[in-house]
Amino acid sequence: MIREIDKNYMKLALSLAKKRKGYTHPNPTVGAVVVKEGKIVGLGYHEKAGKPHAEVMALGQAGEKAKGATLYVTLEPCTHFGRTPPCTDAIIRSGIKRVVVATLDPNPLMSGKGVEKLRNAGIEVDVGVCEEEARELNEDFFTYITQERPYITLKWAQTLDGKLATLTGSSKWITSKESRKVAHILRREATAVLVGVNTVIKDDPHLTVRFVPTEKQPVRIILDPELEVPLSAKVLNTEEAPTIVITKKENEKAEKLKEKGVQVLILKGFNLKNILKKLKELEIMHLMVEGGPRTLTSFLKEGFFDRIVVFIAPKIMGEGLSIGDLGIRSIEESLKVRKKKVENLGEDLVIFFKRY
Amino acid sequence: MIREIDKNYMKLALSLAKKRKGYTHPNPTVGAVVVKEGKIVGLGYHEKAGKPHAEVMALGQAGEKAKGATLYVTLEPCTHFGRTPPCTDAIIRSGIKRVVVATLDPNPLMSGKGVEKLRNAGIEVDVGVCEEEARELNEDFFTYITQERPYITLKWAQTLDGKLATLTGSSKWITSKESRKVAHILRREATAVLVGVNTVIKDDPHLTVRFVPTEKQPVRIILDPELEVPLSAKVLNTEEAPTIVITKKENEKAEKLKEKGVQVLILKGFNLKNILKKLKELEIMHLMVEGGPRTLTSFLKEGFFDRIVVFIAPKIMGEGLSIGDLGIRSIEESLKVRKKKVENLGEDLVIFFKRY
Ligand SMILES: [Zn+2]
Ligand SMILES: [Zn+2]
Repeated sequence: MIREIDKNYMKLALSLAKKRKGYTHPNPTVGAVVVKEGKIVGLGYHEKAGKPHAEVMALGQAGEKAKGATLYVTLEPCTHFGRTPPCTDAIIRSGIKRVVVATLDPNPLMSGKGVEKLRNAGIEVDVGVCEEEARELNEDFFTYITQERPYITLKWAQTLDGKLATLTGSSKWITSKESRKVAHILRREATAVLVGVNTVIKDDPHLTVRFVPTEKQPVRIILDPELEVPLSAKVLNTEEAPTIVITKKENEKAEKLKEKGVQVLILKGFNLKNILKKLKELEIMHLMVEGGPRTLTSFLKEGFFDRIVVFIAPKIMGEGLSIGDLGIRSIEESLKVRKKKVENLGEDLVIFFKRY
Repeated sequence: MIREIDKNYMKLALSLAKKRKGYTHPNPTVGAVVVKEGKIVGLGYHEKAGKPHAEVMALGQAGEKAKGATLYVTLEPCTHFGRTPPCTDAIIRSGIKRVVVATLDPNPLMSGKGVEKLRNAGIEVDVGVCEEEARELNEDFFTYITQERPYITLKWAQTLDGKLATLTGSSKWITSKESRKVAHILRREATAVLVGVNTVIKDDPHLTVRFVPTEKQPVRIILDPELEVPLSAKVLNTEEAPTIVITKKENEKAEKLKEKGVQVLILKGFNLKNILKKLKELEIMHLMVEGGPRTLTSFLKEGFFDRIVVFIAPKIMGEGLSIGDLGIRSIEESLKVRKKKVENLGEDLVIFFKRY
């Protein structure tokens, strides 16, 4: 039976999970709490891929006190050998009496298996405490697991009148430093950051996380069908993060890129569907598409996005590059998105949207 | 000497003034409170042009109790015969001992004259209580008085990606009913609403205040240099509000429009500066420019605006009409505006900007 107090412990488990958001790819971020006779005897979270799961860490802390205790965990415990042994075995061994789970494993092949195994071992299991928050927290992981592609965030900065760049393609800098800092926080939560080759040619970005502390750098991905990327580009000549160039060309330049330590993915069927499938194979869980207008337009047009984050600067540019042709000719056909959050960032504004 | 309590009475006077916002054109909205020995003995506001000024109404309510009392008024009392006799005379006659004024008359020929006249009559006068709110409240009037043009609000609705209309010019309906209701509230505060003839051709709008209660309708103004307005247009054939067509053509069609009761203004020098000067002569205090993209672009390009109100719908259109060429070719040159307020309107967003 679920009681009010269960929510409090689950919220604590969620807050532990949140601390590692962005660092556990391609795993979800998970938190766990062990409670015995009204006392917290173990706290755990999944630090990063390859490290112990949250349940194991919390049970380790609880030690002998786990016997007869309740375990709160933000995601259904695993039953399979992955990079670490199954958590259900550890739970059963520990003598835990009751397990409270926020949400089931999103993988249809796994979903419910962990709960079943625990119940078969005589453990009382309750599912669905703080389920919405738990799903929200690992939204990227859930999408990645259930779709043939990464979770996709489209992110751009625009003037009030929707211009992402000048007519000549420059986008430095539309928004303020304050907004760019938030953009780096978002980048930190992504497994990889993707831009089209034109953005590299025009803006020569680093595509790394800067201005905010981070334990990891996202992979840098350049869509470059014709291999036009300048060999002097910063993304090719800095080592803070790995860089992948995706192209359809197999030529001498590709060899030169490889010599620089850049991974060159040659795709004969060079289209977004194939590219995204490939990125999933590479365990890119959360892909952040940062531009430019042409690349963003192609993702929008093909419906490949889960979230859109738009920074709006209080500026009007008039002529410039904006989101391009989506094949829409009437207002009714417009692509509708769900506004989730609006925040003032000094003079700028950031709006978060989800897809319908 | 100004005391804390003075602010409270002035706030009351401001709230009286606010009730008539939009109804007093071409006059400012003004409120007044008479206080004697800690008791409110008179309340007044300016109802509309031609009706008594706020001070006179409040003094009338106070009657004999005005003797030795304090008068709070949101704008410097007038010293000249306008549509009504000067308020300074009425104040002096009433026996008021002290006058507290929020802000001086913005007209450089008048500013300070009212205060001077009262002081010369032996009345104690304090100026500057709640000055900022008082100036904000009559911002449109202040601009109208000090510039050779009306106060100008540019208002538009756009998709997230900055599209105001489809490629064929239709803008019905980008935003939700909730936003359109707020748009009508804004329209109610304007003296006149202006659109270009293309908007009349494409959308055939009423340009009246509907869906919200109102005591007045703004004048409808159509910019139509070549007299292309369809004779069947709603703005020409509905009588809720007067309509002015501004053109450079003097032909048979102009005669036909006049027969319909439409005012036709023929301007040989057909440019915004002349048009706006003419509108000031017509006592259009607050002009709201509602579109379409071409008309809004010309106001932006020539810097003729004081406020911009943008409704943003959570939709992406891709191809469409947006704010056009302002002669800007770099991000640094972009037209910067000051974000003042952001509001969620259901699924939409409205953002208020001021010019720098
Ligand atoms: Zn596990
Ligand atoms: Zn007066």
